[in-house]
Amino acid sequence: MSLLIVGSLAFDTIKTPFGSIKKTIGGSGAYLSLSASQFYRHTKLISIVGKDFDMGFIKKLTANKIDVRGVEINKNKETFHWEGLYQADLSTRTSIKTELNVLKNYAPIVPNQFKDANYLILGNFHPDYQLEVLNQIDSRPKLIALDTMNYWMDIANKKLLQLLTLVDLICINEEEARLLTNEYSLVKAAKKIMAAGVQFVIIKKGEHGALLFNVEEVFYAPALPLEDVFDPTGAGDTFLGGFMGYIAQTDDISFKNLKRAMIYGSTMASFCVQKFGVNNIISLKQEEVEHRIQDFIDLVQFEISLDKEH
Amino acid sequence: MSLLIVGSLAFDTIKTPFGSIKKTIGGSGAYLSLSASQFYRHTKLISIVGKDFDMGFIKKLTANKIDVRGVEINKNKETFHWEGLYQADLSTRTSIKTELNVLKNYAPIVPNQFKDANYLILGNFHPDYQLEVLNQIDSRPKLIALDTMNYWMDIANKKLLQLLTLVDLICINEEEARLLTNEYSLVKAAKKIMAAGVQFVIIKKGEHGALLFNVEEVFYAPALPLEDVFDPTGAGDTFLGGFMGYIAQTDDISFKNLKRAMIYGSTMASFCVQKFGVNNIISLKQEEVEHRIQDFIDLVQFEISLDKEH
Repeated sequence: MSLLIVGSLAFDTIKTPFGSIKKTIGGSGAYLSLSASQFYRHTKLISIVGKDFDMGFIKKLTANKIDVRGVEINKNKETFHWEGLYQADLSTRTSIKTELNVLKNYAPIVPNQFKDANYLILGNFHPDYQLEVLNQIDSRPKLIALDTMNYWMDIANKKLLQLLTLVDLICINEEEARLLTNEYSLVKAAKKIMAAGVQFVIIKKGEHGALLFNVEEVFYAPALPLEDVFDPTGAGDTFLGGFMGYIAQTDDISFKNLKRAMIYGSTMASFCVQKFGVNNIISLKQEEVEHRIQDFIDLVQFEISLDKEH
Repeated sequence: MSLLIVGSLAFDTIKTPFGSIKKTIGGSGAYLSLSASQFYRHTKLISIVGKDFDMGFIKKLTANKIDVRGVEINKNKETFHWEGLYQADLSTRTSIKTELNVLKNYAPIVPNQFKDANYLILGNFHPDYQLEVLNQIDSRPKLIALDTMNYWMDIANKKLLQLLTLVDLICINEEEARLLTNEYSLVKAAKKIMAAGVQFVIIKKGEHGALLFNVEEVFYAPALPLEDVFDPTGAGDTFLGGFMGYIAQTDDISFKNLKRAMIYGSTMASFCVQKFGVNNIISLKQEEVEHRIQDFIDLVQFEISLDKEH
């Protein structure tokens, strides 16, 4: 029983209208695993860092019960470094620098002890790396979630389409869903993606929440309206990590439980955006999370009994 | 017991990526009253049309049990005419033409039989016209809802701020909320507007739904994800009309009931955008509405019991 996560560990240099930070810890693997570990104590990470990485952070992952035996240290290269600039609305961002470093020609290796995972997240990576991980898995996990981005749709679309036939769930944002399908309507986009072989589609809408589709149903999880959003970096990964962590904990992939997982994921994302980097999700207390889950319940629940009306 | 609505009747010329239509019936008064009348049979309209208006439409309003004794016919002028062009995303639109015609120097008159309304919608108009209506009302309605737009914030901001001290609820879109308050965060924007004297703030987010605030609570009603959105014209008015029609019908202004009204308003708006103009909301069947209310329930309801978790 475990949740296996494949994703990057990075240094992020971030500029927002509210401040900037140099080389803070980031990367999809950091957000995904920290968020998942909030709910599930058997989270395992596959990633790679360079000689300059902060080994203290690896210890923090371990302190959060994340199994880091799949984190490779490449002593010859530097850690992946991303630099981004956010506009005033925090929705549009520009990549200033993307220094792949250790990620260039990375060949992820799944340790033997990791090969029996029953839940798997393929974080945003080159589709080749994601396929390599899938090839090393022994038994088919119950639920495989895939993240990807515009860039791979442009340069590795064929591999990405192959991946869609191998995974159960894809988690992408509005823009990516539209680019992937050439459909403006998110309903049509989701249908096209499901027709390509995926059972569940999550479309993230940033501050407007996220949609979950299967062939018959759709569920809308809002984002919590916050007074201050500080840094949206990693919010999508934090969402997916919380989503999958909750599913792994409950070991239930019914649509009903996936809906709950959407709320848990949105809750974790709402914490993420309130501070730079992973700082707000690394040491969350159980009661803080539950308190915010209640905020979500209050935000969207209403009582309409159609039998009684009219 | 009645719901009084003040709003325009217009000819709209609309171009969307999916087609165009010339001089279809529109105007806030048309959308507001038709949508409200779906739920409430004592809806009264104050408006003005010109010599060229389609009197058959006035009969249709009457057929929908809307009291049109407050609709003035100005035989010397043409009806208000608006022409708009929507971009591919249907979210951005450009006004090509705004021919005020009868609306120029309009002095709305509240008929004596209309002066005891217990619910009131001040549709988007010059704040002077909205104030004139308020001055003619005998007894204070239970709930007064105000709509307005960017344009009035630019040219009549002082009057608008005066109105905020006289009404109970304002219903505006994201962009307008930000312009009015100079706050990007919608939570901060809503707080500022409430501080100016309004008890309830609704911020419409188009395809992303709408938020309802009072000082202590916030509620999020999503928009129904639709396969095809045809024409967004009037969706905001249709939302507010349905919202207030439901409140007038139930005669209950608790936050709990306002939340339900948000769902009824969103439901009506989801019908509105599926055809040009008012065509899809003029003859809706009760069961069509109820069926879609159920879609909304399915879209957002989830079960999390925090006591049972962990």
